[in-house]
Amino acid sequence: MENHKNIDAKGISEIRKKRKSTIDPSKLAEALCQGDKTALSRAITLIESNHQKHITEANKVIALCLQKPIQSIRIGITGVPGVGKSTFIETFGQLLTSNGNKVAVLTVDPTSRQSKGSILGDKTRMESLTKDSNAFIRPSPSGHSLGGVARKTRESIILCEAAGFNIILIETVGVGQSETAVHGMVDFFLLLKLAGAGDELQGIKRGIIEMADGIAINKADGDNLPKALIAKSEFENALQLYPPKENGYRPTVSCCSATENTGIKEVWENIENYIYQSRKTDYFNKKRTQQNKNWLYETIEAKLKSDFFEDSLISNKINHYIEQIISKKISPFQAADQLIAIFKSRS
Amino acid sequence: MENHKNIDAKGISEIRKKRKSTIDPSKLAEALCQGDKTALSRAITLIESNHQKHITEANKVIALCLQKPIQSIRIGITGVPGVGKSTFIETFGQLLTSNGNKVAVLTVDPTSRQSKGSILGDKTRMESLTKDSNAFIRPSPSGHSLGGVARKTRESIILCEAAGFNIILIETVGVGQSETAVHGMVDFFLLLKLAGAGDELQGIKRGIIEMADGIAINKADGDNLPKALIAKSEFENALQLYPPKENGYRPTVSCCSATENTGIKEVWENIENYIYQSRKTDYFNKKRTQQNKNWLYETIEAKLKSDFFEDSLISNKINHYIEQIISKKISPFQAADQLIAIFKSRS
Repeated sequence: MENHKNIDAKGISEIRKKRKSTIDPSKLAEALCQGDKTALSRAITLIESNHQKHITEANKVIALCLQKPIQSIRIGITGVPGVGKSTFIETFGQLLTSNGNKVAVLTVDPTSRQSKGSILGDKTRMESLTKDSNAFIRPSPSGHSLGGVARKTRESIILCEAAGFNIILIETVGVGQSETAVHGMVDFFLLLKLAGAGDELQGIKRGIIEMADGIAINKADGDNLPKALIAKSEFENALQLYPPKENGYRPTVSCCSATENTGIKEVWENIENYIYQSRKTDYFNKKRTQQNKNWLYETIEAKLKSDFFEDSLISNKINHYIEQIISKKISPFQAADQLIAIFKSRS
Repeated sequence: MENHKNIDAKGISEIRKKRKSTIDPSKLAEALCQGDKTALSRAITLIESNHQKHITEANKVIALCLQKPIQSIRIGITGVPGVGKSTFIETFGQLLTSNGNKVAVLTVDPTSRQSKGSILGDKTRMESLTKDSNAFIRPSPSGHSLGGVARKTRESIILCEAAGFNIILIETVGVGQSETAVHGMVDFFLLLKLAGAGDELQGIKRGIIEMADGIAINKADGDNLPKALIAKSEFENALQLYPPKENGYRPTVSCCSATENTGIKEVWENIENYIYQSRKTDYFNKKRTQQNKNWLYETIEAKLKSDFFEDSLISNKINHYIEQIISKKISPFQAADQLIAIFKSRS
């Protein structure tokens, strides 16, 4: 552990030194593609920067990393606070590395204001996995918009895969639309649940069940086990009410305990089986292609919107138009037409 | 009936004559605001036109109509084909006019290619309501995009209200996203259901239940009545699983038979009660203001997108970029950035 800390400290001072010097995207990408974790960290930091110079450099790194093909599995993991996501990832991640995989853990948390505190927090919560040489843990980039955070995470996936990490776990904190964003960047979406004190269907966030490719009821141990088994059958019944997925697949439900390390293997077997079937029918590639297309369209739309609404003249005028709409002096459609005419005459 | 047909024929020839002459938006709006149905029809036809001259004239008419305040209730009605929407609206509409209301019926059907056939179809299905002097029935505008159809319907609501129609029924055919569009333009959203042959929860389109402010189980008559009562209690149980609405309201479930005219009054009482409560807490106005704001933003976003994607250079280039993304030569983000740069350098 002492040794590990020293390496970390050395790595950080190395990064600081390099930051001051000019970054060579080709060299950074080369080191990264050889599996150098420091280079990977540095490249992700570059992606997360909002400076134009860094964006240009980051784009070069990404372009080089895209060339290196790797057969990866991307797994999204969601669940309400307290369901034990970190403990699950800690146990699950170690199972995967012990099977010879290289595992990267990313987090999408648009509410995060990245600080040393939160980095420490994430790494503390996954202590053993942090020390695992075949694992790489990176907390959520900070950012005000989910779109921005999601984009950075999506780019980080490309980098992690180029660095040889073949299983990418993406944790979402379940705030706002972050599940939808993560669902749109993974091959398998896992919902963690708890066996609660009563009706298991209550309090499920709208639409989450529809998104899940699998449900794992965590903390299924001790006195909790009978309740967890009941919850399992309740979920199985509830899932019957939903139409099957696009690929004909019906989500599986299983029980596990991350602290007691029971049922974790079964969760992985369900995922492996799903991926095997997906690859066999080519659904796997179709889904990734569709996700990439969606990312193209979503990025364009987000940029068109931000260019418009962040324009100083528009943001000055829009409230005036809203007042006019409320006082029925203008219809929302006419207001929209006029605002767009103002924007066009300017650019 | 003979007489009615003659008036219709006269009205149509009048419209045709006027069409050839120049339209005076002020005069048209004035006649419309006096409750002239021919003027209302003509103004809606103007709204539905895609010619720039007509759009300018239509905007003037809308601006004038917005000045005339009326306390209206806008009700969306949805349900799968075969649930009996037309028969329900026929019976429900006559109940409302017999209570002294003026009722306008609009339809949102993005699949409609307006033809004499479909107009005849709509009016034939609501024969008695068509003859009712206090009712006005207008079929869906034709259009390729839901956005366009929704905008035209939203503008038609303004015109109908200015013409003195205080209850606006908006039927949606339940295709694609048309429910969401209609939900976004009404004060109350009614879901019509049938008591089926088994599990009532199966086959419900995702998200529709969440949108409903009330559910009416139609065709609850004869041998069907016991099944309808079971369905009612199943829906009531299912609704317990959803969190209450923003205004604290829980949707009501009732049974009715449009053909036997039973339970229709109860549906109206539920709606009246909802509207009364909404007005008391000012939720009614807040919701309308929010809907207007949403329309402003949605219209702007739709226009920004169509300007971009319908640009000839962009539509020529986009498939090339998608191919590059699939062959991993470029990331979706870089492709988006480059396409936007091309668009900007052009305009």
